[in-house]
Amino acid sequence: MKNSFGNSLTVTLFGESHGEYIGAVLDGLAPGIEINHEYIKKKLSLRRPSGKISTARVEADEYSIVSGVFNGYTTGAPLCILIPNTNKKSADYGEKMDIPRPGHADLTAEIKYHGFEDHRGGGHFSGRLTAALVAAGAIVGAALEARGIKIGSHISELHGAFDRGFEDYESDIALLSEKQFPTLSDETRMIKEIEKAAAGRDSVGGILESAVIGIPAGLGEPWFDSMESMLSHALFSIPAVKGVEFGLGFAFADVYGSESNDAISVKDGKIFTETNNNGGINGGITNGMPIVFRTAIKPTPSIFKEQGSISLSKMEKVTLTLSGRHDPAIIHRARAVVDAMTALVIGDALTVRYGTDYLSKKD
Amino acid sequence: MKNSFGNSLTVTLFGESHGEYIGAVLDGLAPGIEINHEYIKKKLSLRRPSGKISTARVEADEYSIVSGVFNGYTTGAPLCILIPNTNKKSADYGEKMDIPRPGHADLTAEIKYHGFEDHRGGGHFSGRLTAALVAAGAIVGAALEARGIKIGSHISELHGAFDRGFEDYESDIALLSEKQFPTLSDETRMIKEIEKAAAGRDSVGGILESAVIGIPAGLGEPWFDSMESMLSHALFSIPAVKGVEFGLGFAFADVYGSESNDAISVKDGKIFTETNNNGGINGGITNGMPIVFRTAIKPTPSIFKEQGSISLSKMEKVTLTLSGRHDPAIIHRARAVVDAMTALVIGDALTVRYGTDYLSKKD
Amino acid sequence: MKNSFGNSLTVTLFGESHGEYIGAVLDGLAPGIEINHEYIKKKLSLRRPSGKISTARVEADEYSIVSGVFNGYTTGAPLCILIPNTNKKSADYGEKMDIPRPGHADLTAEIKYHGFEDHRGGGHFSGRLTAALVAAGAIVGAALEARGIKIGSHISELHGAFDRGFEDYESDIALLSEKQFPTLSDETRMIKEIEKAAAGRDSVGGILESAVIGIPAGLGEPWFDSMESMLSHALFSIPAVKGVEFGLGFAFADVYGSESNDAISVKDGKIFTETNNNGGINGGITNGMPIVFRTAIKPTPSIFKEQGSISLSKMEKVTLTLSGRHDPAIIHRARAVVDAMTALVIGDALTVRYGTDYLSKKD
Amino acid sequence: MKNSFGNSLTVTLFGESHGEYIGAVLDGLAPGIEINHEYIKKKLSLRRPSGKISTARVEADEYSIVSGVFNGYTTGAPLCILIPNTNKKSADYGEKMDIPRPGHADLTAEIKYHGFEDHRGGGHFSGRLTAALVAAGAIVGAALEARGIKIGSHISELHGAFDRGFEDYESDIALLSEKQFPTLSDETRMIKEIEKAAAGRDSVGGILESAVIGIPAGLGEPWFDSMESMLSHALFSIPAVKGVEFGLGFAFADVYGSESNDAISVKDGKIFTETNNNGGINGGITNGMPIVFRTAIKPTPSIFKEQGSISLSKMEKVTLTLSGRHDPAIIHRARAVVDAMTALVIGDALTVRYGTDYLSKKD
Repeated sequence: MKNSFGNSLTVTLFGESHGEYIGAVLDGLAPGIEINHEYIKKKLSLRRPSGKISTARVEADEYSIVSGVFNGYTTGAPLCILIPNTNKKSADYGEKMDIPRPGHADLTAEIKYHGFEDHRGGGHFSGRLTAALVAAGAIVGAALEARGIKIGSHISELHGAFDRGFEDYESDIALLSEKQFPTLSDETRMIKEIEKAAAGRDSVGGILESAVIGIPAGLGEPWFDSMESMLSHALFSIPAVKGVEFGLGFAFADVYGSESNDAISVKDGKIFTETNNNGGINGGITNGMPIVFRTAIKPTPSIFKEQGSISLSKMEKVTLTLSGRHDPAIIHRARAVVDAMTALVIGDALTVRYGTDYLSKKD
Repeated sequence: MKNSFGNSLTVTLFGESHGEYIGAVLDGLAPGIEINHEYIKKKLSLRRPSGKISTARVEADEYSIVSGVFNGYTTGAPLCILIPNTNKKSADYGEKMDIPRPGHADLTAEIKYHGFEDHRGGGHFSGRLTAALVAAGAIVGAALEARGIKIGSHISELHGAFDRGFEDYESDIALLSEKQFPTLSDETRMIKEIEKAAAGRDSVGGILESAVIGIPAGLGEPWFDSMESMLSHALFSIPAVKGVEFGLGFAFADVYGSESNDAISVKDGKIFTETNNNGGINGGITNGMPIVFRTAIKPTPSIFKEQGSISLSKMEKVTLTLSGRHDPAIIHRARAVVDAMTALVIGDALTVRYGTDYLSKKD
Repeated sequence: MKNSFGNSLTVTLFGESHGEYIGAVLDGLAPGIEINHEYIKKKLSLRRPSGKISTARVEADEYSIVSGVFNGYTTGAPLCILIPNTNKKSADYGEKMDIPRPGHADLTAEIKYHGFEDHRGGGHFSGRLTAALVAAGAIVGAALEARGIKIGSHISELHGAFDRGFEDYESDIALLSEKQFPTLSDETRMIKEIEKAAAGRDSVGGILESAVIGIPAGLGEPWFDSMESMLSHALFSIPAVKGVEFGLGFAFADVYGSESNDAISVKDGKIFTETNNNGGINGGITNGMPIVFRTAIKPTPSIFKEQGSISLSKMEKVTLTLSGRHDPAIIHRARAVVDAMTALVIGDALTVRYGTDYLSKKD
Repeated sequence: MKNSFGNSLTVTLFGESHGEYIGAVLDGLAPGIEINHEYIKKKLSLRRPSGKISTARVEADEYSIVSGVFNGYTTGAPLCILIPNTNKKSADYGEKMDIPRPGHADLTAEIKYHGFEDHRGGGHFSGRLTAALVAAGAIVGAALEARGIKIGSHISELHGAFDRGFEDYESDIALLSEKQFPTLSDETRMIKEIEKAAAGRDSVGGILESAVIGIPAGLGEPWFDSMESMLSHALFSIPAVKGVEFGLGFAFADVYGSESNDAISVKDGKIFTETNNNGGINGGITNGMPIVFRTAIKPTPSIFKEQGSISLSKMEKVTLTLSGRHDPAIIHRARAVVDAMTALVIGDALTVRYGTDYLSKKD
């Protein structure tokens, strides 16, 4: 299914940037999960643009849950989240898109949909839709937290500026959950890079590093539904994601097996590995160590600098200078989406493994 | 489905390293695809170990196609490939696995399957199963080539040794299809690195760079079935893959949007982009440029050096020194698997988009 | 996926009888299908209760399409239909359901969802949700009609009253599309049976016979995705459906093969069968003849007569006398749902076979 | 997926009547299920032709399990069953099928696969493939029996001859499991009907009635994955099945709601219904009562009587008189397939609901 994902706990996404609503349907949710609106709102606020490093289009994201919840708890029936698009300026857009924006889906959408796509603000391709994913992910994420499973992401790299890595996962994740700009060390340098890009009518990307802790061993499958496969599938669905790696990832290319194999150890009857170069996954299956992965985010393609493109009607080269409202960086907002997608994948893996009631069980 | 992948053209994988057969079922194949055994054998030979940089276990890979082919052409019914396991030394293995090998799936399999897994030679997790994927991928790959779609991969990096990048895709892919050790420039340095690792009773990994050319624009979906999602899902199913990136990938972190956006251009009525930093995919959908991606392969976890592990029966730390037959590097063999998986994903995307007869159409 | 169906053109259903909205997401729709609101409204009107043979709860069914449509045409992105629940009387319902209604899902929902289900008006199990399916089916159905594929259903049997069978499919389907109470011959006797049941504080079911004409040969698959499998899967999803048969169906039990085999013939280069005992399907695949099937609808379980049930809180037997608004028969309304489901399945089969653009092609 | 079925426990079918092997892959099986070869062989023997009421082609059905089993227990990895085709007479078949057999898939296969299908003995459409389904179903069925879930089917009707219905499910199912010709009362009349058909160079069909006991309440989903939807999907995949009904099924058309609603009752803290007109399923979900359904089997289309068909090469009408080996009835053999498919669907529903280890749990 094209706009759906998951095996037993699934999410279906719909909507366009300038349509009436964006939304998502969560199906296969356990009954009896308490809906924590504060938690959902907080997660949405982490995705929302803020300050001068973001777009001037700010949406209230006043979601409503129109099905699947009764008396404050999930019912087990599909849960539909709707978020109205309120702050849209469709008058900025003509009837037809003629000059596709470089780095965007404008051209591929035109080819795939033969000109019928809603091109306003990126239409169905818009990062705007990730608000619905964040809300859906928050519902699952809260249920995971109730079981001791926690997810957090920080910006590990941004145009030459670096954050420290995870040290104490528990407290680092707690720290990140409170920060609008998610770094473990001081963020000043990164914000300066974004401001510099903005000043230059340009944009920057970066790398997010994520960790999942409290995850049981034994989730995932040997081949096509390996934990890496399922996570990467979901992560690459996020606009602007162009790379995903687990554990050492691409750095595995420069080490010996004796350096990268994680020695297995045991203490007080609990098995663990002395290092975590495999990012918590062996043979596609979780080993009980933190799942650690990194996601590469490309610079926002919408920049104010003049760019080369073509006129589709005239089939000739033109220059394009965008106006409107655009983010010089979306990586700090993207982390809320990465966390949400991760929650959805982990929630699905647990539901497949332990059954459809698992996420509401208190054991 | 756990050991199946694809939407309309699907592959199902089965078998264990020391079982009677490994195999794969291809379902949704167009009728009328000519089976080219020379092509399949050649692809299998590229995956087969050879020389002192590989394991001493060499399998003939004498596959048979036991269904779905009649008079030399696919019938449209599911095609089952069987490959017997002939060169197995199960006497090397005891009744129970007691000391899980670091970096392997031994421990996670034990936890997930409660000790019922076939642990001999890695069982269902063994890289041995990729032979069936290579055969399946070759059947689809030959059909793609008949339509002008070609796939090739080279080792771009291996323990500090680097290959040049793709220059002329067409001739570079042709070159790679003939090389047992797939590099575009001289491979001496890389092979020395592998020999050095082998001499040190150790192993190395590396990075594969792949390209797909001749691919039509408009394949893939905006969100969950984005071309990146589908490819990464399949690629991360391959044992030892720990990273996947498209176009600039992780290098997007250090450039400006104005540097990474691909300017759109047109010549003789044909639209293209002046650069290909997005690796042929925008908004999850192919744009007609070559699809370019890189896959990180970790060092073979089976090394002869002493390693730390535990005895599961005694729940105490032990040291482990492997004997048997192991590869000091599998990256040169893995490229055949990467090419096969890519063929399967592209074949599926074409079948979804253009219907179940597409791969046999001559138009 | 639990509340989704289809392979390439899929529908996802959500909502509860007394929630804010019911709705459906259609995904995989071709771009460029014109939205015909008159057609959708007409189909919804055929499902809507009317007259004294239906419930007194009448909903306006004022649907809105909140995504996937732009300038009056489908975009290719998921299309979400919302229908608000306006005429609800939730005050009729207490906090907890204590006495499950016989023949309903009350008890099974309670067991499956551990008491968290929205029990008001049947919640997610309510026939109310079929309004969203009818709207979704109408969008696909209009696209099918534009390609010459037509679907119609009549009540062939109702508590001892019988309708004539299809004679001229084309004109019979045209006739049915205009009738609120779908019979090919005079409906007086059937309506009397319903009125008699209503007068007796009781309810009746019946049998719907459906036909699909203009369908190309070659749709469906030999085994699990046989046309019968896909249609029956969708039809049995409709509440109250308890039987599905194709062609002679259960009457095959009493004839010889020589009587039931359909002789193959040819005229003017066109192949057909002289009879249609197989209902247009052989080996799971359409043969180009009309698809003909019958669907058994059980009597509405909500009746005003006193019935035996239990109190879940006291775990003892009680008698139950329902008040509120209930249909003495829903079969005439159900035919709109059967037609809608059929359209969705046929649309999916065509999309799988001929690709994602097929439904909008004018050829 | 076209030749696969199931959500968490899935089966993939492959093979042709005259190919080297037929087979099936079971994926998602719990680890630790003991393989009971006696049980599998017995189930296969119930499907095997025997005596003069069956085809003269008798296959040994010497299956082998080539993956997914180790030391006599399932491993959790995909289990592949292979059954060689030994007793085939392909010399009976020319290069091309020219005269499609009425009632068979010959014509639809030709249209769908453009002449590339393996037409020998029905190819992939052959009932021969059900041997692989019976073997797969037996593996799951034995695991179900170990949990107290039992499945049995009898011929309730055959060309005017009738069997009694289920009385004591437990002992009736035990009785049926021992009978090659599955009736609850005396089978003489039915066998006479088959012999009469055979003598007339003709064939008969009939109706199978099946029951599943020991099934927990709460399995299945409200809409598209209703227990009726999943079962009918699987049952209609069986060649010759043309009707499926649950509980009263089509007889619901002639009763009042007050007659067909199943009064709910309770005794010793155990909830049950006083009748079982709904066949153990309400709102798509099992209610804990026996699941009861009937499957209509059409007469074997291969008859020795002269029939009308066409020559595809000449596109003109011809008469066709079949020779070779054919069954005058397959209903007694089909019951083994119905039981197997039912086991697969129930096994899948349990795995979805309770997780991937469920079938091997002893609790």
